[in-house]
Amino acid sequence: MHNEHFYTLSASCPDQVGIIARVSGFIAEHNGWILESSYHSDNNENRYFMRMEIRASSLPCGADEFRRKFAPLATALDMDWSITDSAVKKRVVVMVSKQEHCLYDLLARWQAKELDIEIPCVISNHETFRGFVEWHGIPFHHVPMTPDNKAAAYAEVTRLFTEARGDCMVLARYMQIIPPELCAAYPDKIINIHHSFLPSFVGAKPYHQAYQRGVKLIGATCHFVTPELDQGPIIEQDVIRIDHSDSVEDMVRYGKDIEKAVLARGLRYFLEDRVLLHGNKTVVFR
Amino acid sequence: MHNEHFYTLSASCPDQVGIIARVSGFIAEHNGWILESSYHSDNNENRYFMRMEIRASSLPCGADEFRRKFAPLATALDMDWSITDSAVKKRVVVMVSKQEHCLYDLLARWQAKELDIEIPCVISNHETFRGFVEWHGIPFHHVPMTPDNKAAAYAEVTRLFTEARGDCMVLARYMQIIPPELCAAYPDKIINIHHSFLPSFVGAKPYHQAYQRGVKLIGATCHFVTPELDQGPIIEQDVIRIDHSDSVEDMVRYGKDIEKAVLARGLRYFLEDRVLLHGNKTVVFR
Amino acid sequence: MHNEHFYTLSASCPDQVGIIARVSGFIAEHNGWILESSYHSDNNENRYFMRMEIRASSLPCGADEFRRKFAPLATALDMDWSITDSAVKKRVVVMVSKQEHCLYDLLARWQAKELDIEIPCVISNHETFRGFVEWHGIPFHHVPMTPDNKAAAYAEVTRLFTEARGDCMVLARYMQIIPPELCAAYPDKIINIHHSFLPSFVGAKPYHQAYQRGVKLIGATCHFVTPELDQGPIIEQDVIRIDHSDSVEDMVRYGKDIEKAVLARGLRYFLEDRVLLHGNKTVVFR
Amino acid sequence: MHNEHFYTLSASCPDQVGIIARVSGFIAEHNGWILESSYHSDNNENRYFMRMEIRASSLPCGADEFRRKFAPLATALDMDWSITDSAVKKRVVVMVSKQEHCLYDLLARWQAKELDIEIPCVISNHETFRGFVEWHGIPFHHVPMTPDNKAAAYAEVTRLFTEARGDCMVLARYMQIIPPELCAAYPDKIINIHHSFLPSFVGAKPYHQAYQRGVKLIGATCHFVTPELDQGPIIEQDVIRIDHSDSVEDMVRYGKDIEKAVLARGLRYFLEDRVLLHGNKTVVFR
Repeated sequence: MHNEHFYTLSASCPDQVGIIARVSGFIAEHNGWILESSYHSDNNENRYFMRMEIRASSLPCGADEFRRKFAPLATALDMDWSITDSAVKKRVVVMVSKQEHCLYDLLARWQAKELDIEIPCVISNHETFRGFVEWHGIPFHHVPMTPDNKAAAYAEVTRLFTEARGDCMVLARYMQIIPPELCAAYPDKIINIHHSFLPSFVGAKPYHQAYQRGVKLIGATCHFVTPELDQGPIIEQDVIRIDHSDSVEDMVRYGKDIEKAVLARGLRYFLEDRVLLHGNKTVVFR
Repeated sequence: MHNEHFYTLSASCPDQVGIIARVSGFIAEHNGWILESSYHSDNNENRYFMRMEIRASSLPCGADEFRRKFAPLATALDMDWSITDSAVKKRVVVMVSKQEHCLYDLLARWQAKELDIEIPCVISNHETFRGFVEWHGIPFHHVPMTPDNKAAAYAEVTRLFTEARGDCMVLARYMQIIPPELCAAYPDKIINIHHSFLPSFVGAKPYHQAYQRGVKLIGATCHFVTPELDQGPIIEQDVIRIDHSDSVEDMVRYGKDIEKAVLARGLRYFLEDRVLLHGNKTVVFR
Repeated sequence: MHNEHFYTLSASCPDQVGIIARVSGFIAEHNGWILESSYHSDNNENRYFMRMEIRASSLPCGADEFRRKFAPLATALDMDWSITDSAVKKRVVVMVSKQEHCLYDLLARWQAKELDIEIPCVISNHETFRGFVEWHGIPFHHVPMTPDNKAAAYAEVTRLFTEARGDCMVLARYMQIIPPELCAAYPDKIINIHHSFLPSFVGAKPYHQAYQRGVKLIGATCHFVTPELDQGPIIEQDVIRIDHSDSVEDMVRYGKDIEKAVLARGLRYFLEDRVLLHGNKTVVFR
Repeated sequence: MHNEHFYTLSASCPDQVGIIARVSGFIAEHNGWILESSYHSDNNENRYFMRMEIRASSLPCGADEFRRKFAPLATALDMDWSITDSAVKKRVVVMVSKQEHCLYDLLARWQAKELDIEIPCVISNHETFRGFVEWHGIPFHHVPMTPDNKAAAYAEVTRLFTEARGDCMVLARYMQIIPPELCAAYPDKIINIHHSFLPSFVGAKPYHQAYQRGVKLIGATCHFVTPELDQGPIIEQDVIRIDHSDSVEDMVRYGKDIEKAVLARGLRYFLEDRVLLHGNKTVVFR
């Protein structure tokens, strides 16, 4: 971490000899100073992944022109790529229900600028946190969800997200199943925190499932949302030790600490362009 | 964890044959149902520690009478002891400076009743969090600290703590050194979170010290405050992995997650009467 | 841990008022000095669990007579119970295949008396470790397993285990499925180490499964063997962090460290009578 | 991890624009296929670190010629550098005393080729493990240490290490202080495992120190040996949770598990040329 203004190049492409040389050569030609760089080669699938932070002030041009200049090389290497600008804050729409822990945690990080983002709005199916959110100067939208109004309600959520120009929708214990159309519309923009160590305990009431099975650790998983419930690419996971004396209620309480930490880490990786999709898996350049 | 009304007996005494039998015999005589019990014998120092939760409704009397009935046995066993009532919420005075993470974390737990306490007031040497605290309906006192006004300022802190009938003063990254008189007045009531894995990196700027030494893990320590800086009995500790790529600023950021988790766990142990002093160490019945 | 000679009383029974009082009262009557004691009440199922270490020299009798004296109380409380003698070493039969890590680890602990057990023999379906085992002065039995000889081979394993008067059969990465009859014959004596964090990745090639799913932590599980594959009561688990750069071979390597540690801890809990069965779960008094 | 034949280029140099471009350009010119690469820039001290694995079969020459070709660029960039060949096994001399756990652990990894090294000999100040070591076909040298013979004894150790053409001397709980001359002779070749989480509990009996202080976690540290006791650059560390019920003997037992794991990880990083010295710190490219 540093406080410099930089551009982040994230890319994946078919592997071949000379990729680093060509990309870093391009950057050196423009006198670019590389602050941090990470590479990964998937030898099974012959695919190459990279992430580079380049000091903005070392380049003779801004982000847009840098993208234009880089595009021919990206095309030549058949890249999926992006160049982002650290001076442009990402816009994160937070979805909550009635549980407080992830929301408090995210707003604490936001207000301290530990997470240097915009939160254009918080959307909830309950009114519970309106006062808390609005006190922080963030708009709060109540979009009730009932068995009968799902289509209309998610249309409203989509409208609000679009209006907010969201880069990312974070389900901060939102506790509602996102419809397939919405998942499909934003395949790498909706991030969920699931309260189990996936693939164990998919679906509802994972702490009850964990209690029944008698596991000795419980966990949480931050993942991209896809149409198959709790099956999306995993970004981050962690666990905490429990024992026979812990009731389901204890697990819920311990779990909250893991959930908020895992969500915060996973979200940070995403916001810093450290997460690259690779089929149903992720490459995370920490 | 359970939601029953119970009394907690915490005690330590010289070890001898028959302590459990006499104490549990006393409870059984009064038909007391033991929900949870923990024991520890320090064989080096021949001292015995115990903690028992007794279902209130199983006893024929209230807490005060139960204490009176128990007192003769406690005297016979030469005990340091207390009996607390789960229906009487502990009163926690929170001291903060300008860092948000522990404060947000504690208030999130408080508002969700995960920490079932009263917070009679928050005291700070800065105005930074007045709005946030007052929005939660908690009184906020600004007691400025300067090199010249320490005695008067801590007199005011003591007055506020007394007025608030505080059971516990939590230094939630308060960043000021508590004077020896105040430590001495409340030897087992002031809880601090220190941002290192003690005894490493005592004193100021522990993350800078950790960076200089090149450690591969950083930590935090929740401890009772005593007149010797960062030397008090340790209640809880934890660590997080870092590596060469982490700057001091990164360590500060990672450290915040450990600090708030360690403080929350240590405080919970204290509030549930799970922490028994044993010289400069603690017995913690988790 | 201490070096005293002691008896361990482990028991579970229906919960009621006064169990601790009656049991500790019985021990106090005989002047028994309790070195360590642990209790657990399962409030959902109304069952009570306990474990007590009593200094042998404080009692007026040996283990056999102590058992006889205790039996009436145990009957009155409807207990499942045992009293073991720390001076009688448990006899552990180790089953291995061709992987070295758990075997080396167990023999290191055995030779240093960290695990104070007898290993009457090691049984394997391969000759790989004969020399290593025999060098340690431990008999080695090669019982080949083929698709056609399973019944006869397991009859031989059972015969060897019986002949060895084994208290416990440890599958130290044995990699063979134990037939239901053998599981049924020793429902709480066969301990396995499975190379995943159960219930994730049951069955064969769990590291391959973990690689495919893209999890960020892998684990191991020590459990009692029951007829349903990898479904037995869990004794101990742990995990280790991996990332996108780790191949299946890396996971196998990392996993070995977790497997041997989890097996050693689970086995120790079992040998010290700290593991009490509770349906398909365990109470582990660490 | 992979099973390919590769060369590893490790280097550090003053930071400037274009280092990656020039180095990766050089490799691409020779058609080198980069299997794995890691970079780190220390922005405070303006120094750059790198490690690259290059598939041997992709290059038109062997390691020696590759070194010759690379040397001019290394000189131009003012590099500290090395190129190693994965086909040349490192030679590790193991020093032990009377504790078994690290020795068993290292030999288990060695015999399974998990650590693909040569162990030309084991040196000990006791005869304890002669049989075990020699059974593995490894020469064992007994070099007694007494207060009076240190100079001669360490001269013999140095002679044996030189004769063995050791790349690395591992103090696997050797429990003797290495004299400054020996440290100075091999500043980055002697690796120790210290049984505390440094900088806490330097010197003798760290578990006793930890017990006295009442810490809630204990740890181990793998570090390079320098003339200042326990002050050398840290390669790897880890911790394990303990509590008030753990005696010094328990800590010793728990500690052994951390010691052997931390030593094995630190040694592996070293052997794979992942550890670069940076003053009194290390860069570890995991």
